[in-house]
Amino acid sequence: MSARYVYDFAEGNRDLADLLGGKGANLAEMTRLGLPVPPGFVITTEACRRHLRTGAPPEELWPQVRAHLAELERRAGRRLGDPEDPLLVSVRSGARFSMPGMMETVLNVGLTDASVAGLAQRFADERLAWDSYRRLVHMFGTTVLGMRDEPFVDALHRAAPGGELRMGVTDLRSLVGVYRDLVVSHTGREFPQDPWEQLELAVRAVFASWNTPRAVLYRQRERIPDDLGTAVSVVAMVFGNAGPDSGTGVAFTRDPATGRQGAYGDYLPNAQGEDVVAGVRTPVPLRELERLDPLSHQRLLDVMSTLERHYRDLCDIEFTIERGKLWILQTRVGKRTAAAAFVVAARLAEEGLIDADEALRRVSGARLAQLLFPRFDPGTDRPRLATGVNASPGAAVGEVVFDSATAAAWAARGRRVVLVRRETNPDDLPGLVAAQGVLTSRGGKTSHAAVVARGMGKPCVCGADELEVDVAGRRLVGPGEVVVEEGAVVSVDGTTGAVYLGEVPVVPSAVAEYFERGALPAPGTEDGGAELVRAVDTLVRHADAVRRLGVRANADTPEDAERARRMGAGGIGLCRTEHMFLGERRKHVERLVLADTDAERERALAELLPLQRGDFVGILRAMDGLPVTIRLLDPPLHEFLPDLADLTARVAVARALAEERPEDERLLRAVRRLHEHNPMLGLRGVRLGLVLPGLYAMQVRAIAEAAVECAETGGNPRPQIMVPLVADATEVALARAEVRSVLAEVAAGLDVPVGTMIEVPRAALTADRVAEHADFFSLGTNDLTQMVWGFSRDDVESAFFPRYLELGVLPDSPFETLDVVGVGELVRQAVRRGRAARPDLEVGVCGEHGGDPASVHFFAEAGLDYVSCSPFRVPVARLEAGRAALAR
Amino acid sequence: MSARYVYDFAEGNRDLADLLGGKGANLAEMTRLGLPVPPGFVITTEACRRHLRTGAPPEELWPQVRAHLAELERRAGRRLGDPEDPLLVSVRSGARFSMPGMMETVLNVGLTDASVAGLAQRFADERLAWDSYRRLVHMFGTTVLGMRDEPFVDALHRAAPGGELRMGVTDLRSLVGVYRDLVVSHTGREFPQDPWEQLELAVRAVFASWNTPRAVLYRQRERIPDDLGTAVSVVAMVFGNAGPDSGTGVAFTRDPATGRQGAYGDYLPNAQGEDVVAGVRTPVPLRELERLDPLSHQRLLDVMSTLERHYRDLCDIEFTIERGKLWILQTRVGKRTAAAAFVVAARLAEEGLIDADEALRRVSGARLAQLLFPRFDPGTDRPRLATGVNASPGAAVGEVVFDSATAAAWAARGRRVVLVRRETNPDDLPGLVAAQGVLTSRGGKTSHAAVVARGMGKPCVCGADELEVDVAGRRLVGPGEVVVEEGAVVSVDGTTGAVYLGEVPVVPSAVAEYFERGALPAPGTEDGGAELVRAVDTLVRHADAVRRLGVRANADTPEDAERARRMGAGGIGLCRTEHMFLGERRKHVERLVLADTDAERERALAELLPLQRGDFVGILRAMDGLPVTIRLLDPPLHEFLPDLADLTARVAVARALAEERPEDERLLRAVRRLHEHNPMLGLRGVRLGLVLPGLYAMQVRAIAEAAVECAETGGNPRPQIMVPLVADATEVALARAEVRSVLAEVAAGLDVPVGTMIEVPRAALTADRVAEHADFFSLGTNDLTQMVWGFSRDDVESAFFPRYLELGVLPDSPFETLDVVGVGELVRQAVRRGRAARPDLEVGVCGEHGGDPASVHFFAEAGLDYVSCSPFRVPVARLEAGRAALAR
Repeated sequence: MSARYVYDFAEGNRDLADLLGGKGANLAEMTRLGLPVPPGFVITTEACRRHLRTGAPPEELWPQVRAHLAELERRAGRRLGDPEDPLLVSVRSGARFSMPGMMETVLNVGLTDASVAGLAQRFADERLAWDSYRRLVHMFGTTVLGMRDEPFVDALHRAAPGGELRMGVTDLRSLVGVYRDLVVSHTGREFPQDPWEQLELAVRAVFASWNTPRAVLYRQRERIPDDLGTAVSVVAMVFGNAGPDSGTGVAFTRDPATGRQGAYGDYLPNAQGEDVVAGVRTPVPLRELERLDPLSHQRLLDVMSTLERHYRDLCDIEFTIERGKLWILQTRVGKRTAAAAFVVAARLAEEGLIDADEALRRVSGARLAQLLFPRFDPGTDRPRLATGVNASPGAAVGEVVFDSATAAAWAARGRRVVLVRRETNPDDLPGLVAAQGVLTSRGGKTSHAAVVARGMGKPCVCGADELEVDVAGRRLVGPGEVVVEEGAVVSVDGTTGAVYLGEVPVVPSAVAEYFERGALPAPGTEDGGAELVRAVDTLVRHADAVRRLGVRANADTPEDAERARRMGAGGIGLCRTEHMFLGERRKHVERLVLADTDAERERALAELLPLQRGDFVGILRAMDGLPVTIRLLDPPLHEFLPDLADLTARVAVARALAEERPEDERLLRAVRRLHEHNPMLGLRGVRLGLVLPGLYAMQVRAIAEAAVECAETGGNPRPQIMVPLVADATEVALARAEVRSVLAEVAAGLDVPVGTMIEVPRAALTADRVAEHADFFSLGTNDLTQMVWGFSRDDVESAFFPRYLELGVLPDSPFETLDVVGVGELVRQAVRRGRAARPDLEVGVCGEHGGDPASVHFFAEAGLDYVSCSPFRVPVARLEAGRAALAR
Repeated sequence: MSARYVYDFAEGNRDLADLLGGKGANLAEMTRLGLPVPPGFVITTEACRRHLRTGAPPEELWPQVRAHLAELERRAGRRLGDPEDPLLVSVRSGARFSMPGMMETVLNVGLTDASVAGLAQRFADERLAWDSYRRLVHMFGTTVLGMRDEPFVDALHRAAPGGELRMGVTDLRSLVGVYRDLVVSHTGREFPQDPWEQLELAVRAVFASWNTPRAVLYRQRERIPDDLGTAVSVVAMVFGNAGPDSGTGVAFTRDPATGRQGAYGDYLPNAQGEDVVAGVRTPVPLRELERLDPLSHQRLLDVMSTLERHYRDLCDIEFTIERGKLWILQTRVGKRTAAAAFVVAARLAEEGLIDADEALRRVSGARLAQLLFPRFDPGTDRPRLATGVNASPGAAVGEVVFDSATAAAWAARGRRVVLVRRETNPDDLPGLVAAQGVLTSRGGKTSHAAVVARGMGKPCVCGADELEVDVAGRRLVGPGEVVVEEGAVVSVDGTTGAVYLGEVPVVPSAVAEYFERGALPAPGTEDGGAELVRAVDTLVRHADAVRRLGVRANADTPEDAERARRMGAGGIGLCRTEHMFLGERRKHVERLVLADTDAERERALAELLPLQRGDFVGILRAMDGLPVTIRLLDPPLHEFLPDLADLTARVAVARALAEERPEDERLLRAVRRLHEHNPMLGLRGVRLGLVLPGLYAMQVRAIAEAAVECAETGGNPRPQIMVPLVADATEVALARAEVRSVLAEVAAGLDVPVGTMIEVPRAALTADRVAEHADFFSLGTNDLTQMVWGFSRDDVESAFFPRYLELGVLPDSPFETLDVVGVGELVRQAVRRGRAARPDLEVGVCGEHGGDPASVHFFAEAGLDYVSCSPFRVPVARLEAGRAALAR
């Protein structure tokens, strides 16, 4: 039996999209539903693949097409290109995945010098016939014969200086002549007068259009495989331009912008689909059709209702009315905004069309994240100052400030500020906290500014390299020597990367306000987003009900902890104690580093103890009853000291000017001593704890004393102590022994688990040994990614990262979305080895990836107990954790 | 049946060392051989373990001891402590592994007030009897009763101001009285007069001595498990101090220093073993015994011959002659120097006592390495200036120089220099090459100086922190304000870490000279080391015959390549092209980095091309016919530029002084642009190749042109091109495509494999994907170790490394000996995945570990095809590769 390459619409269905393409399969499905689809057939993607592989369609194809064409002619009651009453067909591409506008279409196939009169006669409209013929020659020339568009467009402009709508029959007939001459002069052959030859060539042209450069590029960008091929549908033409009782339109079964119920769409009377696209005339809202043609309008509503019930989702539809008869030309599950996705999914579930699980499957964490940010009014006319990397979404407006201290001071006086820096570092944290948003001229999505801003849910535009940040001059210079002084207002769009001069109005996020507030809008409230908020709430709650993966938050302050709790976090997965060493406390750290004697060092530690204890009391109270995983000091001490190059220069200048700076000289010696070529791989984490006597003991004492204080005042503190940067089991064993001895002394009655970060590859490779000394693991996927890839996150941005994304070496930044192949393999090994040694081992993740939707899926599959992410990302993680549970 | 805790000598054998300890098992073995061993029995290590676990020996022990004692008494013909004719016994420790001097021994057990007369009567020697009693009370007091040594020593000094040998019977009798009073006053009990009680307490004391602090420490240092316990042997005493026809001695069946044949040893007439140890009298050479007691001498030679044939190895023996009767008290396979190990093994094989494989098993790469270095005359009286870390073994004498340029200049004039630096960096390479040895005041075994010196086989002492290196003042200040000016002579002992003032005579290494020269000493030559050289040659050749692992060398110059070939390398496993960017060529690199336009960059590359080509021609010629694996540029470009802090300071000072330095300013901008927080994890390796257009193409062109030149002049060049720092398969695919396109253009006829380093953890984790684009893998275990552990080799030394070695977190430096547990796991995964994708994949290793004996074993087990190491280490790797083949 020979292979089958052609399916009549009546023979297919929507499950055959691989073979018939999305469009073809849906046409078949509608035909089976009895909807008014013009008769036609589909040539399969397999035929296209054969054509692409061998350069020619399979032998069996044309006989099969002829047979199906004969059946189509029988059903249409006309023969292709019949001079008396010609059947015309459209020849359209249609792949498995939508590639809008990427491939070719030829309409009106079957029109010839002979048949044009027959068409005119059928519609009693000579202009329609010649206009259709003119379009065919133009489309055929460019699509099938490989001509450029310009000669046709030029000829049209010459023939119709007043616009093509004003052309009469004579004009059109003479234009067809000009077009046919163009074909001859450009291709050396006549425009084919054999309808079958037209059809065959059009089909081949659609096949070939799979591999046009723009289509290849599009697939690359959208990650559509290159070897799928396209199907080709051949459909009897219907004419929306056959008079005032004709027309064409697009309709949605619900509002694709808001998700609200009711039919939405556009209608253009007396026109064909391509006229809508060309924008020559402005369509009217769909409801106008009710007035123009109530019967067709009602039929359309019936069709839409059928389709929505059948597809159980928002559908979009292309339709044409030919002299009062409604034809459906295409349908598919409609694209929609993030807001509409949530509203539609929740409504369909309410209406019983789908169940709650299915509703959850139809939304995503990525789309929820979009809804959490305020947006700029899209219609702004403010001048654009620059465009950078859209590093953290949302909209921020404020006065420009150039340093952290000014940002904090101005914000304290109630002013809204935007922190502008060349790049940021941990010292800028108070400024980042105080600012509405951040703008830097260097770095990209993984720069310090970007990572911190995303963590806080603040808008950030990075790497706006058209801007020169002149901190000393307190000003910003943009393209065209535009100067922005400190205090001037700018608007920063972290979603698009745009930076505007002056204030652009901002629309706040109702969803974010809901999560912040923790209360639903009152029932019946229909103002800005109440329906959306209710939909999000419903779906996130369902996710909570089905998910097995816990969601905790990364939080270092009582305020963050409270916020995290409101956002639905089930505890704190990462509390970084180094943030407690910044700002005013820096002087204690300097004293610690400069200590020459044990006594001096102990004094410096003793000064830090009550400060740390105070921090922990606040955090444990905010998370009362929930676990709080506190990481002992991780970063190298020199991070808290001045920069080596700056200090070297300062001292050298002082020496050159014969000034005495003994304090600087002493500091320089210490900074030199602590200087490391690769601090990321140096004296930090548990190494610091084991080498610097008393440091970890002080921190553990602060935690234990805080817990005792909370417990004594009726609380239920649940601290967990985490040892960072472990590479070997012995490190944990030693640190754990010290931790437990302090705990036994200070808080003997409390059960405080002691665990470890798994962030050094060796810890993952030897996780069985490490687990013998750890009550829990927390995967530090940031550092793990750095070491597994051999990339430093601090450095890669400016160097080769962008180039690597361009070359496709990196599909995404592995610091945003977990590299499942490499880092993920080590994660799986760590979980397997850890649980083999200690079956009840709690394993979580506290890297940036804990809030990334795709990564959350992976962590759920890898069998983790929880993810921890920034408070702002908690709802996203909750939703994705629910979806992951359904996927298993 | 109750457990058996006691074995008569006649019941045991040498295979029972776990149970009877080394000493006990060998005594049993000799008894079975019919050698003259005094009768005795052994209490097992299991009894000791029970005692250590429960605090008391097992119940069954004492009845069993009584039974065996009875049998011993029967065979000796005397009863323990019998007043008429007492049997005396020694009670000695003896563990599975030798722990010399760590545990306790009690002699003369069974002597009491009553039996001392019987002993005197038996030997007709009252002095002997009272001297033995005096010794018993002293040993029993300190060992069994836990007294300090001082009271006994003080009493002895008071009683014998002229030395104990001058004491008469009366003095000794009264000293015994004083000793017994000391026992009472210090312990509140009498010295036991019951011989059985003496024995029981002595056995318990030996058990307990397993856990003395010094024994615990020793085991920790020697990595002997703590839970083995010791056996206890109870042996009838014999007396070498019973007159002029008695004596005691130690003998070796071959010379343990040189391995030469013949009996070696010492003999002390009329003395007991402990007198030899105490050094009170000087023994005579063993050959004197032939004159003193020819019969005993002949018996001893017979025993030695029996033992050597039985143990098939060099044995050492402790013996005693009691009134003309020879007794053997102990034997074991004797310790020996590295030289003796090779000579003995080769000789025993020659003599047919062992086969060649066994001979190879008995030597080691570590011992061969010791033989490759010149040594200082051990009898020097030169003052010691300081002691540092013995970072690279060998002896160097030369004039002190403080910078690389001076070192090179002086050496060029024929002067021998020692390069002295605070620490070294890649710029010091010419100085390191020129110097006899290196001395630094900072850093340890993994510092730059140490690693490079070891690579070159040059002596290096690092981290001699008593020394202050004053480069500006061209002098060195040592302890006690000793000043060493530039040009003064010092002697540096890299084997011990000692640094001497002035010249210490050096003994060159005959073995190293042999490998360097590549020729054996003429047969019959018996001068310095000829026999040793022949032995080493025999064993290394046998290793070559049996090994499956190839040995290549790391070499970057034609000279190194020639040397490697002489050393027996089967090719070059790593040729680092960055060494070709140093020195004079640095200016081209600066031009490359500062290039503002494509044209400038291409010009800089074009300048480098002929230089690189010249290097490759020389190397390919030196290795004609053998593979030469050339690594494309790996280190970050800023390594070739000035230091950021220095340059910042220079520019700041110039600005402060209002000087114009436009070139420095321009350079500073470039250095800042290239500055990375963690250069180890930054823009280097293949990243540089993919980001900097033309760089790799230039290098490949130079290789290809060089290969063509060699082939055209009749050579057989076999270059292999290696892409460094790969993390993802796409990187290799892209680099390989570029490499192959240049090869196709320049050297189409040559077959040049293109492979990749596996040095980033992700490359190992995804080795199956990487292997699809790589003809070979070379494991870069240096970088792999850094990233798997999260240690930077440049930084760890000064920070926490020493502390980690102290704490036992690191048993060894993982940069010296491969971390089999962590890094090794990833190595195994890389090999498995790589071969799964490409079964014929060639896999080698080119890290420092390729020359480390323990690591070579691991690489052989992991199924690698070859190791590559510094030329100097090639013989070591060849030998170990052979041993590894036997171990499988």
